[in-house]
Amino acid sequence: MATRSRSRGPVREMLRARPGKRPLNLDERGASKTPGVNKATAAAEGARDAKILRDLQERLYAEDRRAVLLVLQGMDTSGKDGTITHVIGNVDPQGVHIRGFGKPTPEELRHDFLWRIRRALPPKRFIGIFNRSHYEDVLVVRVKRLAPKSVWSKRYDAINAFEREVSASGTTIVKICLRISYAEQGERLLARLRDRTKWWKFNPADLGDRARWREYMAAYEDAIAKCNTEAAPWYVVPSDKKWYRDWAVTRILIETLEEMDPRYPEPQFDVAEELARTKKTIAKTPPR
Amino acid sequence: MATRSRSRGPVREMLRARPGKRPLNLDERGASKTPGVNKATAAAEGARDAKILRDLQERLYAEDRRAVLLVLQGMDTSGKDGTITHVIGNVDPQGVHIRGFGKPTPEELRHDFLWRIRRALPPKRFIGIFNRSHYEDVLVVRVKRLAPKSVWSKRYDAINAFEREVSASGTTIVKICLRISYAEQGERLLARLRDRTKWWKFNPADLGDRARWREYMAAYEDAIAKCNTEAAPWYVVPSDKKWYRDWAVTRILIETLEEMDPRYPEPQFDVAEELARTKKTIAKTPPR
Repeated sequence: MATRSRSRGPVREMLRARPGKRPLNLDERGASKTPGVNKATAAAEGARDAKILRDLQERLYAEDRRAVLLVLQGMDTSGKDGTITHVIGNVDPQGVHIRGFGKPTPEELRHDFLWRIRRALPPKRFIGIFNRSHYEDVLVVRVKRLAPKSVWSKRYDAINAFEREVSASGTTIVKICLRISYAEQGERLLARLRDRTKWWKFNPADLGDRARWREYMAAYEDAIAKCNTEAAPWYVVPSDKKWYRDWAVTRILIETLEEMDPRYPEPQFDVAEELARTKKTIAKTPPR
Repeated sequence: MATRSRSRGPVREMLRARPGKRPLNLDERGASKTPGVNKATAAAEGARDAKILRDLQERLYAEDRRAVLLVLQGMDTSGKDGTITHVIGNVDPQGVHIRGFGKPTPEELRHDFLWRIRRALPPKRFIGIFNRSHYEDVLVVRVKRLAPKSVWSKRYDAINAFEREVSASGTTIVKICLRISYAEQGERLLARLRDRTKWWKFNPADLGDRARWREYMAAYEDAIAKCNTEAAPWYVVPSDKKWYRDWAVTRILIETLEEMDPRYPEPQFDVAEELARTKKTIAKTPPR
């Protein structure tokens, strides 16, 4: 259970968002850094960390009392899908509850922006993953002026109240911004266009968002600053290096689950009695 | 794409249910057999098969036109959960749509037995997994007399019509019965009771089903015989050996997907033009 016996401190402390303080966090240069680990060490720890995460998830599932919600945000190509594949892909698929949020449907638009989010919350015992989230309603909505400032500027408070409620109901929220640099996004878009098995992931509209990079970063900075609560903390994970991104998200989940410390439940039956009953049925062939 | 270059024939042909013909299929002795492969070969093929399945799933997802529905049935401890962990755990969790069916809720009971099933069908591009299914309505319902024969006996035709409709709508159905022996189930129940991290999986009521083993087998035999259509074939996978079960289910899924042959879609944009547009944006820092 204790996996903290190493010289580095908790990754959650290291990567907790510190809006306004730029050395590592939201600036362009931070995206390619790899604080706390080098590639060889991350690779060496990978298999062990995957198993630790798998075991913690099984305990969360068995306990059947609480949930985790991992909110993934980031610019196009920042690796939201890749993180789900490589980090969440390590745990039991039956304990995972993934929901993605694209452009709202006409029905969704007839409701408050949190309506579709509430419906997508993970049930207890699950690790829920939001691939994009309610934060789009203060990111793309703001940058592309899909709603007036009078509307989106009130949403930070609404989000904090919502997240407080979710957290109080037994769902631990972990919000991660996958931070890539403008330069790295350019390389990844080119790579997509050069590989025909990746064309389906390319959307010409992504270049429009790319042109508004600084506006997006300002919107991220605000969202993270205004909604970086104890009940629902933001982490900024440098994501130019995919191996670092996967290592860091895994560690953040592990530290979160270790703190929750889910337990196998006490049996609701008499174990010795059931063992005796079962032993009586042991036979090569079923009873007639 | 072609991975059929081996001496054995298709696993689907080998394990296709043959009700009434007992040498391999539904009898007790069949459960521990390992037709078509030995343990060493299955282990050697495991990593390669996992990658083949992952690639096929990505093509299904990218194609965005069709779906697969894997129906898993089997007695308690037959390995439905384990199959999902070890087979489905190898593909991208974002392309997987898992639904389990327990005792119907009061709301579900106010509807036709297929109501909750229809709502749980995978959307196109997904591999859906049913952990138990509408077959419970001709298995447990029949064995425990939860409905009169006049009700459950009409359901085979209803199931066939339903599955025909699902198949015609673009969802390829694969139904797998995980066949364990009565003796093996006894061992697995004892193992659960001897490991406190497994107690949460044990339900004393399972022993009641175990006592009705022959009735269940008769109900399975009927369900498989009556609903073993070309549109929705049944496979019987000997599952006393977990390594065999995982190998066989993986091969059945691979063969099914290879026959479907999903293709990456043609791009909905001019690739050269987008490449040129993207190249123009390449820079170390974002535009002001």
